[in-house]
Amino acid sequence: MANTSIILRVELAHDQVTFGDVASVISRAGGDVSSIDVIRVGKESSVRDITVDIQDSLEAEVVTAIKQLKGINLINVSDRTFLAHLGGKISMQPSMPIKNRDDLSRVYTPGVARVCTAIHEDPQKAYSLTIKRNTVAVITDGTAVLGLGDIGPKAAAPVMEGKAMLFKQLAGVDAFPICLDTTDTEEIIRTVKAISPIFGGINLEDISSPRCFEIESRLAEELDIPVFHDDQHGTAVVMLAGILNALKVVGKPIESIRVVVNGVGAAGVSVCKMLLAAGVKRLVPVDRDGAIVRGESYEQPMWQWLAQQSQVEAVAGGLDQVIAGADVFIGVSRAGLLKVEHLKSMAKDPIVFALANPQPEIDPDLAAPYVRVLATGRSDYPNQINNVLCFPGIFRGALDCRANHINEEMKLAVARAIASVVSDSELNELYIIPSIFNEHVVNNVRHAVIEAAIRTGVARRIPPDFR
Amino acid sequence: MANTSIILRVELAHDQVTFGDVASVISRAGGDVSSIDVIRVGKESSVRDITVDIQDSLEAEVVTAIKQLKGINLINVSDRTFLAHLGGKISMQPSMPIKNRDDLSRVYTPGVARVCTAIHEDPQKAYSLTIKRNTVAVITDGTAVLGLGDIGPKAAAPVMEGKAMLFKQLAGVDAFPICLDTTDTEEIIRTVKAISPIFGGINLEDISSPRCFEIESRLAEELDIPVFHDDQHGTAVVMLAGILNALKVVGKPIESIRVVVNGVGAAGVSVCKMLLAAGVKRLVPVDRDGAIVRGESYEQPMWQWLAQQSQVEAVAGGLDQVIAGADVFIGVSRAGLLKVEHLKSMAKDPIVFALANPQPEIDPDLAAPYVRVLATGRSDYPNQINNVLCFPGIFRGALDCRANHINEEMKLAVARAIASVVSDSELNELYIIPSIFNEHVVNNVRHAVIEAAIRTGVARRIPPDFR
Repeated sequence: MANTSIILRVELAHDQVTFGDVASVISRAGGDVSSIDVIRVGKESSVRDITVDIQDSLEAEVVTAIKQLKGINLINVSDRTFLAHLGGKISMQPSMPIKNRDDLSRVYTPGVARVCTAIHEDPQKAYSLTIKRNTVAVITDGTAVLGLGDIGPKAAAPVMEGKAMLFKQLAGVDAFPICLDTTDTEEIIRTVKAISPIFGGINLEDISSPRCFEIESRLAEELDIPVFHDDQHGTAVVMLAGILNALKVVGKPIESIRVVVNGVGAAGVSVCKMLLAAGVKRLVPVDRDGAIVRGESYEQPMWQWLAQQSQVEAVAGGLDQVIAGADVFIGVSRAGLLKVEHLKSMAKDPIVFALANPQPEIDPDLAAPYVRVLATGRSDYPNQINNVLCFPGIFRGALDCRANHINEEMKLAVARAIASVVSDSELNELYIIPSIFNEHVVNNVRHAVIEAAIRTGVARRIPPDFR
Repeated sequence: MANTSIILRVELAHDQVTFGDVASVISRAGGDVSSIDVIRVGKESSVRDITVDIQDSLEAEVVTAIKQLKGINLINVSDRTFLAHLGGKISMQPSMPIKNRDDLSRVYTPGVARVCTAIHEDPQKAYSLTIKRNTVAVITDGTAVLGLGDIGPKAAAPVMEGKAMLFKQLAGVDAFPICLDTTDTEEIIRTVKAISPIFGGINLEDISSPRCFEIESRLAEELDIPVFHDDQHGTAVVMLAGILNALKVVGKPIESIRVVVNGVGAAGVSVCKMLLAAGVKRLVPVDRDGAIVRGESYEQPMWQWLAQQSQVEAVAGGLDQVIAGADVFIGVSRAGLLKVEHLKSMAKDPIVFALANPQPEIDPDLAAPYVRVLATGRSDYPNQINNVLCFPGIFRGALDCRANHINEEMKLAVARAIASVVSDSELNELYIIPSIFNEHVVNNVRHAVIEAAIRTGVARRIPPDFR
């Protein structure tokens, strides 16, 4: 039963109703007045904002009760979530005030011309003399937003703005949301390339599968700045961090385990690739039509790629069959797909990552008795697999070393860096992954990314702390 | 002789050179040490930043003199203009800190889903729940930047960032620079449309003529947010503000004057349109091949349009011929095109706006004895015609009333609003246009834009102060 806060703006006629009347009505309906702001006081009436803490389910009751009072005019009901979004969640901040002509001639005409000329003569100077050094585009076409699906670019904006807030607060990265009014693969690629000069990196977000694969790989190939589809790789990187620590808990080496990945969409494919890169030798990717079988042919290019990997099992069957004997289950699919019967058929000390959002593949309370380590995407259970652990630090590092790509080695290094934030002495079944508020995460991730970028030759700058 | 500040980062070997030696060398070379910052002090050497005030022309001499000193290592020379651009000139600011899970669940998942759904159900809510309400894209392809020409998107960025600073400081508008890696008209139109959902307005900037005409008119037609090419209309609006006041000074009604507009590119066409909208009855647009003649045929569509206007004269000839008897000369062309002989042939009380940048069509000191009112684009002479007087306020107003277009009536109203900031008692030959730092400009412009938008039916919201 989630609690929320609502803010009621009411006009009270002095001769008909008192604030005490209002407060007692709210209280009887199950609400709790937590603050009152006077907006306007007139001769005959006053306007106040009343903040009420209340259970989600009782909101309508309070509103109805208020409306029935005589002498009261309910002007507006807002809740705190909507208020937090009012007017958008990010703004631009100039680096200095322009106080006089002297300032103006430096940051704008005529002085700016010398700066422009310097970049024209050496385009790499864009990194020192413009926002390119620290700015990432968060780009979506609004086709696969949260659990909501294809809600379009305007409705996707609040998520992208929220992401920009996290980029700044956690890693000091300036991110700007770009919401595309097209879902055509070629047009998206063209558009992102066309707007790329001002950006130091591209974070693709909430673009539906399978278009997201081609969009990301083409952009990564054709642009000289890092391109990262967070839904694919963010999830995969943080998943791997959790798996590495979960395996420590159960004492199984990664080379020995058999892993079932349920759901082979954008995130699922990346999860499979990440597991292979980390050394998994027995992998069973499963989708609606059953397991992807080594040696078979598939229309979807990424499935075909998986079917060609020697580590993928050559055994057909649905989840019911293939889950038997698995050490690890990773779900990036849909609520309710995983049953207690499945868990019972797994190998000893089962590790289950039920990452479907907002409802996991199995109810965590239902699963708990049958698994050794359980992780979900939810914040209200232990072991939350959350992309926020990855994207701020990975871009911080990529920008700092001017990486032209984010490659598998960098992602692998990040997974290990996130895992290492939980020390051996802290590690246990209920704590395999750090909190997103853990202050070591971003620095560890940044360090790992830069180190891997330098090692693999994609860094174009050695940051001072690596010299 | 302009002064600048340079910052010399030097390493001094303790046993070979003292700071006093350095200071006296700088002083002998014509520089003035204004501050010293110690960066690092070691056993054998120290590193310091020495800020030196100096005439532009003497910079090289100081540097040479320093280099000749023994025991000194000149690590770097920066000047204050470049320093002001270091790392870019704008950054993103979150609207609130995310302090805990409660905050996170409001601005990001899972709470944000309700906000997304609300916009999905009613896209107009993007204006209240995202940054669209207050955010403008400053878009260029880098083909006509300042006086520098086609320097490309990366080199254009410092101008766009400077503009974003001015938008914020002067009018509270959040602007983001988009520098396009394409110069193809159709591709630019497609790209701007594709990225438009997050923006409340589009400021086109430094796009070369004649492509800019089609790009702007097509975007204005196909988007439901205001589109404004500042090089065309910003200049034209502020020019008209100056002309209105100049005409007051000389006591001529606008219907009676004969105006020569020299240079019929992006700005020139808009200047002509603005003058016609304001009531000018005798107009002579002149380009390289001479006057545009009423009734003739021209390939360039905008020239053809001008040749069809009844107010355009049907007389051929070069500037030498057509300038004779003109009341007003407006140059948006090139340095040096206007001669003293031309001025002498003009009607009584000549008004000359020599707006070429950075060098006007005629040297202001040379022109002064022969004209009654002189305006230029320069900040070091009276009567600066500067777009900064227009764009912040016009977008402030357009955003506040959610105008879907910026039409001629709105621009005309803005010109009058800017002119009206100079009161009749202040008005004189040397003060026809307010300073860009005049605090009344933005509010007056905003008010005029909203009033005209409501009157002409393009406003989709009545701001509280207009109800």
